[in-house]
Amino acid sequence: MNTPKHPPIERADTITDVRGIQVGQHTDPRRPTGCSVVLAQGPDGGGAVAGVDVRGAAPGTRETDLLAPTNLVERVQAVLLSGGSAWGLDAASGVMRWLEEHGLGLPVGTAPGQLVPIVPAAVLFDLHVGDARIRPGADAGHAACQAASRAPPAQGNVGAGAGAVVGKLFGMASAMKGGIGSASVRVGEVTVGALIAVNALGDVVDPDTGAPIAGARTPDGQALRHSVRALLAGEAPQAILAGSNTTIGVVATDAPLIKARAQRLAGAGHDGLARAIRPVHTMSDGDTLFALSTGHAPAIDFNLLCAMASEAVARACVHAVRAARGLQADGLWLPSAIDLEASRA
Amino acid sequence: MNTPKHPPIERADTITDVRGIQVGQHTDPRRPTGCSVVLAQGPDGGGAVAGVDVRGAAPGTRETDLLAPTNLVERVQAVLLSGGSAWGLDAASGVMRWLEEHGLGLPVGTAPGQLVPIVPAAVLFDLHVGDARIRPGADAGHAACQAASRAPPAQGNVGAGAGAVVGKLFGMASAMKGGIGSASVRVGEVTVGALIAVNALGDVVDPDTGAPIAGARTPDGQALRHSVRALLAGEAPQAILAGSNTTIGVVATDAPLIKARAQRLAGAGHDGLARAIRPVHTMSDGDTLFALSTGHAPAIDFNLLCAMASEAVARACVHAVRAARGLQADGLWLPSAIDLEASRA
Repeated sequence: MNTPKHPPIERADTITDVRGIQVGQHTDPRRPTGCSVVLAQGPDGGGAVAGVDVRGAAPGTRETDLLAPTNLVERVQAVLLSGGSAWGLDAASGVMRWLEEHGLGLPVGTAPGQLVPIVPAAVLFDLHVGDARIRPGADAGHAACQAASRAPPAQGNVGAGAGAVVGKLFGMASAMKGGIGSASVRVGEVTVGALIAVNALGDVVDPDTGAPIAGARTPDGQALRHSVRALLAGEAPQAILAGSNTTIGVVATDAPLIKARAQRLAGAGHDGLARAIRPVHTMSDGDTLFALSTGHAPAIDFNLLCAMASEAVARACVHAVRAARGLQADGLWLPSAIDLEASRA
Repeated sequence: MNTPKHPPIERADTITDVRGIQVGQHTDPRRPTGCSVVLAQGPDGGGAVAGVDVRGAAPGTRETDLLAPTNLVERVQAVLLSGGSAWGLDAASGVMRWLEEHGLGLPVGTAPGQLVPIVPAAVLFDLHVGDARIRPGADAGHAACQAASRAPPAQGNVGAGAGAVVGKLFGMASAMKGGIGSASVRVGEVTVGALIAVNALGDVVDPDTGAPIAGARTPDGQALRHSVRALLAGEAPQAILAGSNTTIGVVATDAPLIKARAQRLAGAGHDGLARAIRPVHTMSDGDTLFALSTGHAPAIDFNLLCAMASEAVARACVHAVRAARGLQADGLWLPSAIDLEASRA
């Protein structure tokens, strides 16, 4: 392995603590939607070994099949997370264009331009927040790449989290603002980071205590309802638009991994979702996590790495809703966790 | 649908609260190992619609491929959970024999005896507890079926949980006794129950508070260590025999489901494992959950059913270690949760 281009840095508790990872985001100025891109480079300038685990029943994805461990491509240059439901998949085109402009991609020949950037992508549904005709396209994806850096990414109502909403089990009127969040865990020289856009049907809860932080509210709007408890007590969930929820994200590490292990790391991330979101992985969620291994750090016990991934994902979900800000959309007030805390103080 | 043969019953908080479900267990008298069988019948006397979700990296299974929603067979007559590692898969033969004796199986012709009982199975590793040459075989599987009834199943050091151990991340010397546990959740006329044999690498924690109940102990043996916290603080896990851990179980409901949904219900069960076991789904665990739908009850919102499954599985894990009793094996003292509580009292 070459000398790492990125020496260890002070931990900012975000995914860009992972060496070889940059994040860029574009937030639409017209209505709450946008996209977030994770750029990945290994020590040799190539991409990161990648995997994916789709656990929700209503996913919207692109370039996930090539990530099966039995398939050819080992490394990807970027992962895109986008709002805009299936329309948002177009933003990946802009990411590909930006990568081509920078000479990054899977080599498919020796002549100039003979490379194909590999950009797996997942989207979330945010079309009920403002004008549904506005959604991230290729230019949004390109702009996100232009903005990419190793700086800690902005969190909350930003990029893919701009229009994210949580706690929709009893309808949009009692829901709260979701968002995008990030966190990292470091053990020795190895870092695992997560960037998660939380648009869940369920509530976001403190993974250590189970206490709801943002989710479905009581009829007076002032308190959290604890969706699963209400469900199990026999309250009927509100019929919600199919596929109008989803938590999508990236788990990245600088430890080296083979492709099959990258898929397992994404799976470990889902255990973090199970701890931080309730209910999660429902028929109405398209919960999808990607994993990236840049290989800038030494290898580490894989069970430890998975525990780090679960922890980073769970904490990123909490950061997403803690960084979110309340939103007025189409006559609907979607308060954030801090709004609710302020109103109770 | 015919009139249910099994009218609703008082809830005993075990899997046999689910109409159409019986449980039988055989515990080896020679050393702590055994097997547990779940027998399932629909209102028409046929089996239950079934699914499976294998989420651990070191599974030992039989008849799981046919459960893929794209494959032919829709219903199974029984699911076997067994100790004895891969040897324990033989116990399924005895279950098949018992089912044949009772005329139960997939019809493959009209002549007498022309049926094939379908018995998916998963095993856990308990060969380090006593004489490894003793393991459940066909007779054990047959005996478990003979013992089957609608009575609440015994929990703790019984059947597939007889030799189960938890909290092995820092070695067997600091581990504790695992076991088999059951729980049920009822909403309206629908019940979801779980039967889970917990032999996890990780700790069993209270799913509501995250507090460890049984797992790796401190060097003095008197307190719980909180494995994930220790891992993330940099403590090196002990190299453990590959595949020497696993949590296996069955989630059953009397609500009707199509086969593809049964697989999703098993997946929802894994979210319960993620809440009750940390770490879970590791490279050294073969975590496998089956789902059964007997169809004796009316249909219910599927997201609610999944929330019930997560809850039942999480609580069954807690019941498993709370019902367990300490075990002396090969000079190793494996205390149970109640032993640890007693020593601290």
